[in-house]
Amino acid sequence: MSFSMSKALVPALELTLTALSGVLDKAQAFAAAKKIDPAVLLNERLAPDMFSLTRQVQAVSDLAKNGAARLGGIEPPRYEDNETTIDELKARLAKTVAFIKSVDAAKIDAAADREISFPLGPVNKGQMRGDDYLNHFVLPNVYFHATAAYAILRHAGVELGKQDFLAGIPMKMS
Amino acid sequence: MSFSMSKALVPALELTLTALSGVLDKAQAFAAAKKIDPAVLLNERLAPDMFSLTRQVQAVSDLAKNGAARLGGIEPPRYEDNETTIDELKARLAKTVAFIKSVDAAKIDAAADREISFPLGPVNKGQMRGDDYLNHFVLPNVYFHATAAYAILRHAGVELGKQDFLAGIPMKMS
Repeated sequence: MSFSMSKALVPALELTLTALSGVLDKAQAFAAAKKIDPAVLLNERLAPDMFSLTRQVQAVSDLAKNGAARLGGIEPPRYEDNETTIDELKARLAKTVAFIKSVDAAKIDAAADREISFPLGPVNKGQMRGDDYLNHFVLPNVYFHATAAYAILRHAGVELGKQDFLAGIPMKMS
Repeated sequence: MSFSMSKALVPALELTLTALSGVLDKAQAFAAAKKIDPAVLLNERLAPDMFSLTRQVQAVSDLAKNGAARLGGIEPPRYEDNETTIDELKARLAKTVAFIKSVDAAKIDAAADREISFPLGPVNKGQMRGDDYLNHFVLPNVYFHATAAYAILRHAGVELGKQDFLAGIPMKMS
Protein backbone atom coordinates (compact mmCIF):
# COMPACT_ATOMS: atom_id res chain seq x y z
CA MET A 1 0.00 0.00 0.00
CA SER A 2 1.42 3.35 -0.92
CA PHE A 3 1.72 6.38 1.28
CA SER A 4 -0.20 9.49 0.26
CA MET A 5 -1.08 13.02 1.29
CA SER A 6 -4.67 12.08 2.13
CA LYS A 7 -3.47 9.18 4.25
CA ALA A 8 -1.11 11.46 6.19
CA LEU A 9 -3.86 14.03 6.72
CA VAL A 10 -7.42 12.75 6.97
CA PRO A 11 -7.18 9.93 9.55
CA ALA A 12 -4.82 12.01 11.71
CA LEU A 13 -7.29 14.89 11.80
CA GLU A 14 -10.25 12.59 12.43
CA LEU A 15 -8.49 10.78 15.29
CA THR A 16 -7.21 13.98 16.88
CA LEU A 17 -10.54 15.82 16.76
CA THR A 18 -12.44 12.78 17.99
CA ALA A 19 -9.97 12.30 20.86
CA LEU A 20 -10.36 15.98 21.75
CA SER A 21 -14.11 15.46 21.90
CA GLY A 22 -13.48 12.68 24.45
CA VAL A 23 -11.22 15.02 26.42
CA LEU A 24 -14.10 17.51 26.53
CA ASP A 25 -16.38 14.74 27.86
CA LYS A 26 -13.95 14.33 30.77
CA ALA A 27 -13.99 18.08 31.33
CA GLN A 28 -17.80 17.97 31.44
CA ALA A 29 -17.76 15.11 33.95
CA PHE A 30 -15.14 16.90 36.08
CA ALA A 31 -17.25 20.07 36.18
CA ALA A 32 -20.32 18.07 37.18
CA ALA A 33 -18.45 16.15 39.90
CA LYS A 34 -16.90 19.31 41.34
CA LYS A 35 -20.10 21.35 40.87
CA ILE A 36 -18.20 23.88 38.77
CA ASP A 37 -19.86 25.84 35.97
CA PRO A 38 -18.31 24.31 32.81
CA ALA A 39 -17.91 27.86 31.51
CA VAL A 40 -15.13 28.30 34.06
CA LEU A 41 -13.15 25.57 32.31
CA LEU A 42 -14.01 26.94 28.87
CA ASN A 43 -12.56 30.30 29.87
CA GLU A 44 -9.37 28.88 31.40
CA ARG A 45 -6.06 29.68 29.79
CA LEU A 46 -2.41 29.03 30.64
CA ALA A 47 -1.28 32.64 30.26
CA PRO A 48 -3.29 35.87 29.97
CA ASP A 49 -2.29 36.27 26.32
CA MET A 50 -2.91 32.67 25.30
CA PHE A 51 -6.18 31.34 23.88
CA SER A 52 -8.87 30.11 26.27
CA LEU A 53 -9.99 26.49 26.09
CA THR A 54 -12.91 27.48 23.85
CA ARG A 55 -10.60 29.27 21.41
CA GLN A 56 -8.13 26.37 21.41
CA VAL A 57 -10.90 23.98 20.37
CA GLN A 58 -12.15 26.41 17.72
CA ALA A 59 -8.57 26.75 16.45
CA VAL A 60 -8.22 22.98 16.13
CA SER A 61 -11.43 22.95 14.11
CA ASP A 62 -10.36 25.89 11.93
CA LEU A 63 -6.90 24.56 11.15
CA ALA A 64 -8.30 21.13 10.33
CA LYS A 65 -11.17 22.25 8.07
CA ASN A 66 -9.13 24.95 6.37
CA GLY A 67 -6.22 22.59 5.83
CA ALA A 68 -8.34 19.84 4.31
CA ALA A 69 -10.33 22.28 2.18
CA ARG A 70 -7.29 24.11 0.77
CA LEU A 71 -5.48 20.87 -0.01
CA GLY A 72 -8.70 19.61 -1.60
CA GLY A 73 -8.94 22.75 -3.72
CA ILE A 74 -12.25 23.94 -2.30
CA GLU A 75 -13.38 26.91 -0.25
CA PRO A 76 -13.33 26.17 3.51
CA PRO A 77 -16.70 26.39 5.23
CA ARG A 78 -17.03 29.30 7.64
CA TYR A 79 -18.06 28.54 11.18
CA GLU A 80 -19.47 31.20 13.46
CA ASP A 81 -17.25 30.80 16.56
CA ASN A 82 -20.34 31.18 18.70
CA GLU A 83 -19.94 28.07 20.89
CA THR A 84 -20.55 28.69 24.58
CA THR A 85 -20.95 25.15 25.95
CA ILE A 86 -18.98 21.93 25.86
CA ASP A 87 -21.78 20.26 23.89
CA GLU A 88 -21.59 23.00 21.27
CA LEU A 89 -17.81 22.59 20.99
CA LYS A 90 -18.24 18.84 20.62
CA ALA A 91 -20.80 19.42 17.88
CA ARG A 92 -18.34 21.76 16.16
CA LEU A 93 -15.67 19.06 16.24
CA ALA A 94 -18.10 16.47 14.87
CA LYS A 95 -19.18 18.83 12.08
CA THR A 96 -15.51 19.47 11.27
CA VAL A 97 -14.73 15.75 11.06
CA ALA A 98 -17.72 15.18 8.77
CA PHE A 99 -16.52 17.99 6.51
CA ILE A 100 -12.93 16.72 6.38
CA LYS A 101 -14.10 13.25 5.42
CA SER A 102 -16.20 14.73 2.62
CA VAL A 103 -13.19 16.31 0.89
CA ASP A 104 -12.05 14.47 -2.27
CA ALA A 105 -9.01 12.40 -1.20
CA ALA A 106 -7.69 12.25 -4.77
CA LYS A 107 -7.54 16.06 -4.85
CA ILE A 108 -5.59 16.07 -1.58
CA ASP A 109 -3.22 13.45 -2.97
CA ALA A 110 -2.61 15.59 -6.05
CA ALA A 111 -1.83 18.73 -4.05
CA ALA A 112 1.79 17.97 -3.06
CA ASP A 113 3.31 20.33 -5.65
CA ARG A 114 0.52 22.88 -5.78
CA GLU A 115 1.05 26.25 -4.10
CA ILE A 116 -1.39 26.80 -1.26
CA SER A 117 -2.21 30.38 -0.33
CA PHE A 118 -3.92 31.09 2.96
CA PRO A 119 -4.69 34.04 5.25
CA LEU A 120 -2.30 34.73 8.15
CA GLY A 121 -4.24 37.09 10.36
CA PRO A 122 -6.39 39.87 8.92
CA VAL A 123 -3.80 41.28 6.50
CA ASN A 124 -1.07 38.85 5.52
CA LYS A 125 -1.09 35.75 3.37
CA GLY A 126 1.09 32.68 3.62
CA GLN A 127 2.19 30.59 0.67
CA MET A 128 3.48 27.05 0.95
CA ARG A 129 3.81 24.07 -1.35
CA GLY A 130 1.03 21.57 -0.64
CA ASP A 131 3.21 18.92 0.99
CA ASP A 132 4.93 21.53 3.16
CA TYR A 133 1.57 23.02 4.10
CA LEU A 134 0.36 19.59 5.25
CA ASN A 135 3.57 18.60 7.07
CA HIS A 136 4.68 21.93 8.50
CA PHE A 137 1.53 23.97 8.97
CA VAL A 138 -1.69 21.97 9.22
CA LEU A 139 -0.51 19.04 11.34
CA PRO A 140 1.75 20.94 13.77
CA ASN A 141 -0.90 23.63 14.27
CA VAL A 142 -3.69 21.13 14.88
CA TYR A 143 -1.55 19.18 17.36
CA PHE A 144 -0.42 22.43 18.98
CA HIS A 145 -3.94 23.61 19.77
CA ALA A 146 -5.21 20.13 20.69
CA THR A 147 -2.32 19.77 23.16
CA ALA A 148 -2.92 23.26 24.51
CA ALA A 149 -6.58 22.33 25.17
CA TYR A 150 -5.43 19.16 26.92
CA ALA A 151 -2.83 21.09 28.94
CA ILE A 152 -5.36 23.70 30.09
CA LEU A 153 -7.58 20.92 31.45
CA ARG A 154 -4.70 19.02 33.04
CA HIS A 155 -3.59 22.23 34.72
CA ALA A 156 -7.16 22.72 35.97
CA GLY A 157 -7.09 19.29 37.58
CA VAL A 158 -9.02 17.15 35.10
CA GLU A 159 -7.71 13.59 35.18
CA LEU A 160 -6.41 12.94 31.71
CA GLY A 161 -3.60 10.83 30.35
CA LYS A 162 -1.77 10.47 27.07
CA GLN A 163 -4.23 7.75 26.11
CA ASP A 164 -6.97 10.40 26.03
CA PHE A 165 -4.93 12.49 23.62
CA LEU A 166 -4.11 9.48 21.43
CA ALA A 167 -7.51 7.78 21.82
CA GLY A 168 -8.53 5.47 19.01
CA ILE A 169 -5.17 5.09 17.29
CA PRO A 170 -4.75 1.79 15.42
CA MET A 171 -2.35 0.13 17.87
CA LYS A 172 -2.27 -3.42 19.20
CA MET A 173 -0.85 -3.94 22.67
CA SER A 174 0.81 -7.06 24.00
CA MET B 1 7.47 15.34 -6.79
CA SER B 2 5.94 12.44 -4.92
CA PHE B 3 4.97 12.31 -1.31
CA SER B 4 6.74 9.79 0.92
CA MET B 5 7.12 8.52 4.46
CA SER B 6 10.56 10.10 4.87
CA LYS B 7 9.26 13.43 3.59
CA ALA B 8 6.40 13.35 6.11
CA LEU B 9 8.76 12.46 8.95
CA VAL B 10 12.31 13.76 8.72
CA PRO B 11 11.87 17.48 7.96
CA ALA B 12 8.97 17.72 10.44
CA LEU B 13 11.13 16.29 13.21
CA GLU B 14 14.12 18.44 12.29
CA LEU B 15 12.04 21.63 12.22
CA THR B 16 10.22 20.83 15.46
CA LEU B 17 13.33 19.94 17.44
CA THR B 18 15.24 22.93 16.10
CA ALA B 19 12.35 25.25 16.94
CA LEU B 20 12.24 23.76 20.44
CA SER B 21 15.93 24.53 20.82
CA GLY B 22 15.11 28.16 19.99
CA VAL B 23 12.33 28.11 22.57
CA LEU B 24 14.91 26.96 25.13
CA ASP B 25 17.13 29.89 24.13
CA LYS B 26 14.28 32.21 25.05
CA ALA B 27 13.88 30.39 28.37
CA GLN B 28 17.60 30.88 29.04
CA ALA B 29 17.37 34.61 28.22
CA PHE B 30 14.25 34.95 30.41
CA ALA B 31 16.01 33.31 33.36
CA ALA B 32 19.03 35.59 32.93
CA ALA B 33 16.88 38.74 32.66
CA LYS B 34 14.81 37.82 35.70
CA LYS B 35 17.83 36.52 37.63
CA ILE B 36 16.13 33.15 38.07
CA ASP B 37 18.08 29.90 38.28
CA PRO B 38 17.27 28.19 34.93
CA ALA B 39 16.79 24.96 36.91
CA VAL B 40 13.56 26.48 38.25
CA LEU B 41 12.19 26.56 34.72
CA LEU B 42 13.52 23.08 33.94
CA ASN B 43 11.61 21.70 36.93
CA GLU B 44 8.35 23.51 36.10
CA ARG B 45 5.33 21.44 35.18
CA LEU B 46 1.65 22.19 34.52
CA ALA B 47 0.30 19.59 36.95
CA PRO B 48 2.03 17.59 39.69
CA ASP B 49 1.68 14.36 37.70
CA MET B 50 2.80 15.79 34.37
CA PHE B 51 6.37 15.78 33.08
CA SER B 52 8.68 18.65 33.99
CA LEU B 53 10.15 20.79 31.23
CA THR B 54 13.32 18.69 31.24
CA ARG B 55 11.34 15.47 30.80
CA GLN B 56 9.17 17.00 28.07
CA VAL B 57 12.29 17.87 26.06
CA GLN B 58 13.78 14.42 26.67
CA ALA B 59 10.47 12.88 25.54
CA VAL B 60 10.53 14.89 22.30
CA SER B 61 14.04 13.59 21.69
CA ASP B 62 13.11 10.00 22.54
CA LEU B 63 10.00 9.87 20.40
CA ALA B 64 11.83 11.43 17.47
CA LYS B 65 14.93 9.23 17.56
CA ASN B 66 13.01 6.05 18.33
CA GLY B 67 10.47 6.79 15.60
CA ALA B 68 13.08 7.46 12.93
CA ALA B 69 15.18 4.46 13.96
CA ARG B 70 12.29 1.99 14.03
CA LEU B 71 10.95 3.16 10.69
CA GLY B 72 14.50 2.95 9.35
CA GLY B 73 14.85 -0.61 10.64
CA ILE B 74 17.72 0.10 13.00
CA GLU B 75 18.19 0.03 16.77
CA PRO B 76 17.52 3.46 18.36
CA PRO B 77 20.50 4.96 20.16
CA ARG B 78 20.12 5.14 23.93
CA TYR B 79 20.57 8.49 25.59
CA GLU B 80 21.28 8.81 29.28
CA ASP B 81 18.59 11.31 30.37
CA ASN B 82 21.21 13.05 32.49
CA GLU B 83 20.68 16.61 31.24
CA THR B 84 20.55 19.22 34.01
CA THR B 85 21.01 22.47 32.07
CA ILE B 86 19.40 24.19 29.10
CA ASP B 87 22.64 23.89 27.15
CA GLU B 88 22.69 20.15 27.75
CA LEU B 89 19.07 19.83 26.57
CA LYS B 90 19.89 21.85 23.46
CA ALA B 91 22.86 19.55 22.80
CA ARG B 92 20.54 16.56 23.20
CA LEU B 93 18.15 18.01 20.62
CA ALA B 94 21.02 18.73 18.21
CA LYS B 95 22.35 15.19 18.64
CA THR B 96 18.86 13.83 18.01
CA VAL B 97 18.47 15.84 14.80
CA ALA B 98 21.85 14.64 13.56
CA PHE B 99 20.84 11.05 14.24
CA ILE B 100 17.45 11.39 12.50
CA LYS B 101 19.09 12.85 9.41
CA SER B 102 21.52 9.92 9.33
CA VAL B 103 18.73 7.32 9.01
CA ASP B 104 18.36 5.85 5.51
CA ALA B 105 15.39 7.68 3.96
CA ALA B 106 14.74 4.83 1.51
CA LYS B 107 14.27 2.45 4.45
CA ILE B 108 11.76 4.84 6.01
CA ASP B 109 9.93 5.12 2.68
CA ALA B 110 9.71 1.33 2.47
CA ALA B 111 8.30 0.93 5.99
CA ALA B 112 4.64 1.85 5.31
CA ASP B 113 3.40 -1.76 5.38
CA ARG B 114 5.93 -3.16 7.82
CA GLU B 115 4.80 -3.93 11.38
CA ILE B 116 6.64 -1.80 13.90
CA SER B 117 6.94 -3.15 17.44
CA PHE B 118 7.96 -0.81 20.23
CA PRO B 119 8.03 -0.72 24.04
CA LEU B 120 5.11 0.92 25.86
CA GLY B 121 6.40 1.40 29.37
CA PRO B 122 8.51 -1.23 31.10
CA VAL B 123 6.30 -4.24 30.33
CA ASN B 124 4.01 -3.77 27.33
CA LYS B 125 4.71 -3.58 23.64
CA GLY B 126 2.78 -1.74 20.98
CA GLN B 127 2.44 -2.90 17.39
CA MET B 128 1.45 -0.65 14.52
CA ARG B 129 1.80 -0.69 10.76
CA GLY B 130 4.63 1.63 9.69
CA ASP B 131 2.43 4.34 8.16
CA ASP B 132 0.12 4.32 11.19
CA TYR B 133 3.12 4.46 13.53
CA LEU B 134 4.40 7.56 11.71
CA ASN B 135 1.01 9.31 11.41
CA HIS B 136 -0.63 8.33 14.68
CA PHE B 137 2.17 7.74 17.15
CA VAL B 138 5.46 9.44 16.29
CA LEU B 139 4.19 12.78 14.99
CA PRO B 140 1.38 13.34 17.52
CA ASN B 141 3.63 12.35 20.41
CA VAL B 142 6.48 14.61 19.29
CA TYR B 143 4.11 17.55 18.82
CA PHE B 144 2.42 16.77 22.13
CA HIS B 145 5.62 16.99 24.16
CA ALA B 146 7.01 19.95 22.18
CA THR B 147 3.77 21.86 22.80
CA ALA B 148 3.81 20.86 26.47
CA ALA B 149 7.35 22.27 26.78
CA TYR B 150 6.20 25.48 25.09
CA ALA B 151 3.11 25.67 27.32
CA ILE B 152 5.14 25.24 30.52
CA LEU B 153 7.32 28.19 29.51
CA ARG B 154 4.37 30.35 28.42
CA HIS B 155 2.70 29.64 31.74
CA ALA B 156 5.94 30.63 33.51
CA GLY B 157 5.89 33.98 31.74
CA VAL B 158 8.42 33.48 28.95
CA GLU B 159 7.44 35.60 25.93
CA LEU B 160 6.87 33.13 23.15
CA GLY B 161 4.53 33.07 20.17
CA LYS B 162 3.36 30.54 17.64
CA GLN B 163 6.20 31.65 15.36
CA ASP B 164 8.65 30.23 17.92
CA PHE B 165 6.90 26.86 17.80
CA LEU B 166 6.77 26.87 13.98
CA ALA B 167 10.18 28.51 13.49
CA GLY B 168 11.89 27.78 10.21
CA ILE B 169 8.94 26.36 8.28
CA PRO B 170 9.16 26.83 4.50
CA MET B 171 6.52 29.56 4.20
CA LYS B 172 6.53 32.76 2.16
CA MET B 173 4.53 35.69 3.52
CA SER B 174 2.98 38.49 1.52
